Amino acid sequence: MVSLKGKDILHGNQFSKKDIDAIIKVASELEKELKKKDSLNLLKGKILATLFYEPSTRTRLSFEAAMQRLGGGIIGMGSVESSSVAKGETLADTVRTVSQYVDVIVLRHPRTGSAKEAADVTPIPVINAGDGTGQHPTQALLDIYTIKKETGSLKNLTIAMVGDLKNGRTVHALAEVLSLFGARLYFVSPDSLRMPAEITSHLKAKKIGFVETEDMMEAAAASDLVYMTRIQKERFSDLSEYERVKGSYIINEEFLKRLKKKITILHPLPRVDEINPEVDAYPGAAYFRQVRNGVFIRMALLTMIFGKR
Amino acid sequence: MVSLKGKDILHGNQFSKKDIDAIIKVASELEKELKKKDSLNLLKGKILATLFYEPSTRTRLSFEAAMQRLGGGIIGMGSVESSSVAKGETLADTVRTVSQYVDVIVLRHPRTGSAKEAADVTPIPVINAGDGTGQHPTQALLDIYTIKKETGSLKNLTIAMVGDLKNGRTVHALAEVLSLFGARLYFVSPDSLRMPAEITSHLKAKKIGFVETEDMMEAAAASDLVYMTRIQKERFSDLSEYERVKGSYIINEEFLKRLKKKITILHPLPRVDEINPEVDAYPGAAYFRQVRNGVFIRMALLTMIFGKR
Amino acid sequence: MVSLKGKDILHGNQFSKKDIDAIIKVASELEKELKKKDSLNLLKGKILATLFYEPSTRTRLSFEAAMQRLGGGIIGMGSVESSSVAKGETLADTVRTVSQYVDVIVLRHPRTGSAKEAADVTPIPVINAGDGTGQHPTQALLDIYTIKKETGSLKNLTIAMVGDLKNGRTVHALAEVLSLFGARLYFVSPDSLRMPAEITSHLKAKKIGFVETEDMMEAAAASDLVYMTRIQKERFSDLSEYERVKGSYIINEEFLKRLKKKITILHPLPRVDEINPEVDAYPGAAYFRQVRNGVFIRMALLTMIFGKR
Repeated sequence: MVSLKGKDILHGNQFSKKDIDAIIKVASELEKELKKKDSLNLLKGKILATLFYEPSTRTRLSFEAAMQRLGGGIIGMGSVESSSVAKGETLADTVRTVSQYVDVIVLRHPRTGSAKEAADVTPIPVINAGDGTGQHPTQALLDIYTIKKETGSLKNLTIAMVGDLKNGRTVHALAEVLSLFGARLYFVSPDSLRMPAEITSHLKAKKIGFVETEDMMEAAAASDLVYMTRIQKERFSDLSEYERVKGSYIINEEFLKRLKKKITILHPLPRVDEINPEVDAYPGAAYFRQVRNGVFIRMALLTMIFGKR
Repeated sequence: MVSLKGKDILHGNQFSKKDIDAIIKVASELEKELKKKDSLNLLKGKILATLFYEPSTRTRLSFEAAMQRLGGGIIGMGSVESSSVAKGETLADTVRTVSQYVDVIVLRHPRTGSAKEAADVTPIPVINAGDGTGQHPTQALLDIYTIKKETGSLKNLTIAMVGDLKNGRTVHALAEVLSLFGARLYFVSPDSLRMPAEITSHLKAKKIGFVETEDMMEAAAASDLVYMTRIQKERFSDLSEYERVKGSYIINEEFLKRLKKKITILHPLPRVDEINPEVDAYPGAAYFRQVRNGVFIRMALLTMIFGKR
Repeated sequence: MVSLKGKDILHGNQFSKKDIDAIIKVASELEKELKKKDSLNLLKGKILATLFYEPSTRTRLSFEAAMQRLGGGIIGMGSVESSSVAKGETLADTVRTVSQYVDVIVLRHPRTGSAKEAADVTPIPVINAGDGTGQHPTQALLDIYTIKKETGSLKNLTIAMVGDLKNGRTVHALAEVLSLFGARLYFVSPDSLRMPAEITSHLKAKKIGFVETEDMMEAAAASDLVYMTRIQKERFSDLSEYERVKGSYIINEEFLKRLKKKITILHPLPRVDEINPEVDAYPGAAYFRQVRNGVFIRMALLTMIFGKR
């Protein structure tokens, strides 16, 4: 049995296939238990601190809900402006200080590597909730958990990732984690936003088959699941290029009609207009179920970190 | 017995006289139980989310205190600047997302109709904590509860509403709710800030007697209770008009001396200078008790929404 | 036995030596109990409100952690911008209002005397978490608790306070509290940032020996403990004077080597560069343990205020 007791959660690569299976199993058990009662008492008396140096709703609230569903408490730094950060305190000192108050820290920070830096200065577990363009491992785990629940299995899947594959840390982490399970991948993006070489070479080394294309329909037709991401206007120097791209990566009813097959659709959210709200009622539209799965995955990680499973 | 189980709380008009009597009864019971112990366990394990798109202290804290006194937990979006709203997410998507984390949502939003819009996209109950110039139903209910407690009955009352009757959503909702109980009403305001026609015509249809006047003393002398509201400078194009009006709608010791009768004074707060602090010790000054009643009313609503009464 | 039941915590001077001994004793007991379990249920059902009108991380989080470790709940005003303060509400009205929701208020406010003002308008206990350049009594108590734990006793100590002694409210309060225990004091600062006359004359009246000097090494060599504070650039009109001073009040490995004796180092934090991080591993570097002691002291105060010890 895999043990996460006392461990930090810093990077998608830290998990083996066996680890991920174990985490999914615990998440699934906790999800079932939560159907019987509103909260469990597994972490009664424990306190989690949220240190968010960047705007975020869903990740912070998801952790806070997970901790409360486990019977634990929460304290939060609040906005950076209202904290001692304004007095010039280093991240290391803030982390050392907050470690005196709580039992686990959840950190989001704009600097790549900051979560590791935080973990290095404190004896309590640190969970990386996004460090710049680096990692966001709990997102990758909730994505995997959702894929398994929606498609029934993680074996022999073909998955299309669509949108800004260059800057999206969620697709980077997901691609790496999926490589453990032998998926076939389609990377759908405009040429300027292709999956970085460090990811594709990693996949090649692991002998994971992937296709890079600009054609979302072709990829979707060959896939079990489409993972959409937001394309951000500010990434383009040529706005006409942005308008062209934006228009081509939109899932709406018409697209689904032309697709002529059932497909599962995920999105890390927030979306802007890459998935039309008319799609929300489509049975395969799983992005809000994906949000809920984030609570179960974070409950599983917290429970395992404290050695309660 | 009235059931609010699983219901949204969106509009003052959604409640019948019977509903209001039932809510007041539950509030009164919970208030008594809270005298014996600091908190009840009725909502243990439930989580409430506060989504406040506008500044507010008292309404948010009142709901948070109510939920905690019932044994439940809270998560909050925090300021709009530090949330995904900054990334252009629609209200509907934020509500759908937060619905995956919690059991009930309390929403304040500047757009009239936003609470209904939120309720339409989520299966969990939504409580309107103020939608623009629209509604603020829990305020109306706590006002009614306070009036009953302070005056002993909701029958045969004469009530004067004073100040900005045009823009004040609390007086609109209160007037409508009072119409269920057959009160007589005085509307005291400068001509430019009179009660809107949609309210007065509603009262006429319900055969509720009301008098519109600019004379606060005349109205107070004929009333059991004065409901004061703040007059906001920015509503006036003519500042000399503002100064005149402001001076005439002030309750202070001198006014009470001239009034020569005991009266109950309410105010939704915050006040600026329409009630002089020297009045705070006056036995009829009930506006801080009114604040406390807000906790009991919100406890009652939450308890009933979850079917625990 | 000293009773703090129902009392406000406003000023370091309100405590006798006996009071402080009693508070330290309770803090020590609670610290031991917390080693056995993550939280106690002493304040279950009680709610604490944090009203912070100035940026702060550590004090607010420390109180929030303390309250949760005792089983109680928390509500917070949040940033001033997102609250009714923006609508021009007075501190007195905000305090009166929040008093309707909770059982104890923790207040930080930029105006000296504000905590007393708050306590005067509410029947519930108010804890001063810093009022301008005035007081911060819980900091003084946690400092004393730390000094006792680190040095073994409060008797016959020699303590050097270093840095900005003019503006630092923590050193003012600590000097006054230490005067109860007969300590010998060194005040190390540039001439422009000397300990104010009101403190030194108080010490003279109490026959407490103290030495004022600019030489940190001399003071440290004669002391059991050095209490460092931050020197703020903005206090100097002459920047070359700032650079000279800043350079001379830095504790680093070289300083400790030259000192040739074991010493205890405290700091109220956040630090900028007056203690080099290379010192953190030094056994006498007690400033992060000091942070943790803040939780125990605040737990003790809260427990005693509610009459549970």
